[in-house]
Amino acid sequence: MNETTKQTPPGRFITVEGGEGVGKSSNMDFIADYLRKQDITVCRTREPGGTPFAEAVRELLVKRDAAPLTDKAELLLIFAARDSHLQDVILPALSRGEWVLCDRFTDATYAYQGQGRKLGEAAVAWLEQWIQGERRPDLTLLLDAPVSIGLERADKRGERDRFEQETVQFFQTIRETYLERAEAEPERFRRIDASQSLNQVQSQIQTELAQWIRQLPEALS
Amino acid sequence: MNETTKQTPPGRFITVEGGEGVGKSSNMDFIADYLRKQDITVCRTREPGGTPFAEAVRELLVKRDAAPLTDKAELLLIFAARDSHLQDVILPALSRGEWVLCDRFTDATYAYQGQGRKLGEAAVAWLEQWIQGERRPDLTLLLDAPVSIGLERADKRGERDRFEQETVQFFQTIRETYLERAEAEPERFRRIDASQSLNQVQSQIQTELAQWIRQLPEALS
Ligand SMILES: Nc1ncnc2c1ncn2[C@@H]1O[C@H](COP(=O)(O)OP(=O)(O)OP(=O)(O)O)[C@@H](O)[C@H]1O
Ligand SMILES: Nc1ncnc2c1ncn2[C@@H]1O[C@H](COP(=O)(O)OP(=O)(O)OP(=O)(O)O)[C@@H](O)[C@H]1O
Ligand SMILES: [Mg+2]
Ligand SMILES: [Mg+2]
Repeated sequence: MNETTKQTPPGRFITVEGGEGVGKSSNMDFIADYLRKQDITVCRTREPGGTPFAEAVRELLVKRDAAPLTDKAELLLIFAARDSHLQDVILPALSRGEWVLCDRFTDATYAYQGQGRKLGEAAVAWLEQWIQGERRPDLTLLLDAPVSIGLERADKRGERDRFEQETVQFFQTIRETYLERAEAEPERFRRIDASQSLNQVQSQIQTELAQWIRQLPEALS
Repeated sequence: MNETTKQTPPGRFITVEGGEGVGKSSNMDFIADYLRKQDITVCRTREPGGTPFAEAVRELLVKRDAAPLTDKAELLLIFAARDSHLQDVILPALSRGEWVLCDRFTDATYAYQGQGRKLGEAAVAWLEQWIQGERRPDLTLLLDAPVSIGLERADKRGERDRFEQETVQFFQTIRETYLERAEAEPERFRRIDASQSLNQVQSQIQTELAQWIRQLPEALS
């Protein structure tokens, strides 16, 4: 047999991150559509959530009138939901060669629980390693905008949820943590200026995606 | 001032442990009554549970028709509920000088999740340290009986819950883990032969409690 055996390219794991109301969910459709136009099969999902169990956990975490919980309980619940999501949705999709597009992932946990709630990077890192092993996103689009812009947008959307009721200082910490993480891992992160109009944001996202896809091994060969 | 200042004795933390149906819950009233007869203020509680948040988590863990969850998610949920229970119920009661009497605690986690679910002792130990710091029960009453006896008793009680549907091998592992832990910490554990009649069990519990209370510093002085 001297045919060249063409291997199916592996699935890729893309996450969309950023503070409250910067426009993550608004851009999920656009990103999924763009990828599909490149003949990529997309598995679109979100955290916390993505499985019946994880959505039940999300209720305990996000609802304004949920029973009060401690900060440590919040962090443990997030990783409980994440394990379910990884085992039942994300890893199976990646093994089928699909691209997983996820609205928030573990960078949000470092930002919100590690720094915002002051639980520390070490606890998040231990849980990340225990739950994810070496699995990390391949590409993370960080939608970055001044805190005031995100909160204004979120407010227009309606009543604030449990997280959205936090102080401006809390959201400032979230933003800074995201920016530090992006700076520490420039290979994985692409920073998008989310203070622009939706059109401009999408145009920047498209440019970054196109460039990232072009440098993948299967595109180069 | 040369009066002797009499310090209020500290609260004590007593846990009741053992496999399915050995009679933990059945003996909680008896133990609480016995302690109250010694003029001890008792805070009676159970795990998973003890706060509105922890009871909501219990629903996700125990109910037969709950959404399927991974073993790691199960372990994280248990410690999330435990943190809430510790912060809002157990530690405040102990600081008021009350004795906390709890139906199951972290020994159950080592037995069920660490060994039964094969998640390993190290993961349980990391979470125990992160959530509890140095806090451990002062006394643990281990109700021990052959697996078949506990399961027969549990079956008489009605439909099996999510845990009670496990295999006999699973419960055998639980029993062995409890026995190993009791052997490793003889100061803290008292093993009760739970295969006896309820009367005999209570008589043994009372003997052990009386003896344990007699050797406390405040009883000796
Ligand atoms: N670039 C933009 N310019 C103006 N408004 C925007 C822009 N992007 C999103 N919005 C609007 O801002 C609001 C918040 O957007 P969206 O829900 O997508 O944010 P999010 O990042 O997903 O928020 P959350 O953190 O709460 O999940 C929505 O009403 C959306 O229509
Ligand atoms: N010593 C005993 N002899 C006979 N029956 C008993 C004895 N102790 C308890 N029982 C009965 O066994 C059943 C299980 O007891 P119980 O619910 O107290 O066990 P448990 O250890 O709390 O179980 P679980 O692990 O499910 O919480 C009950 O119906 C109870 O009345
Ligand atoms: Mg959103
Ligand atoms: Mg019971």
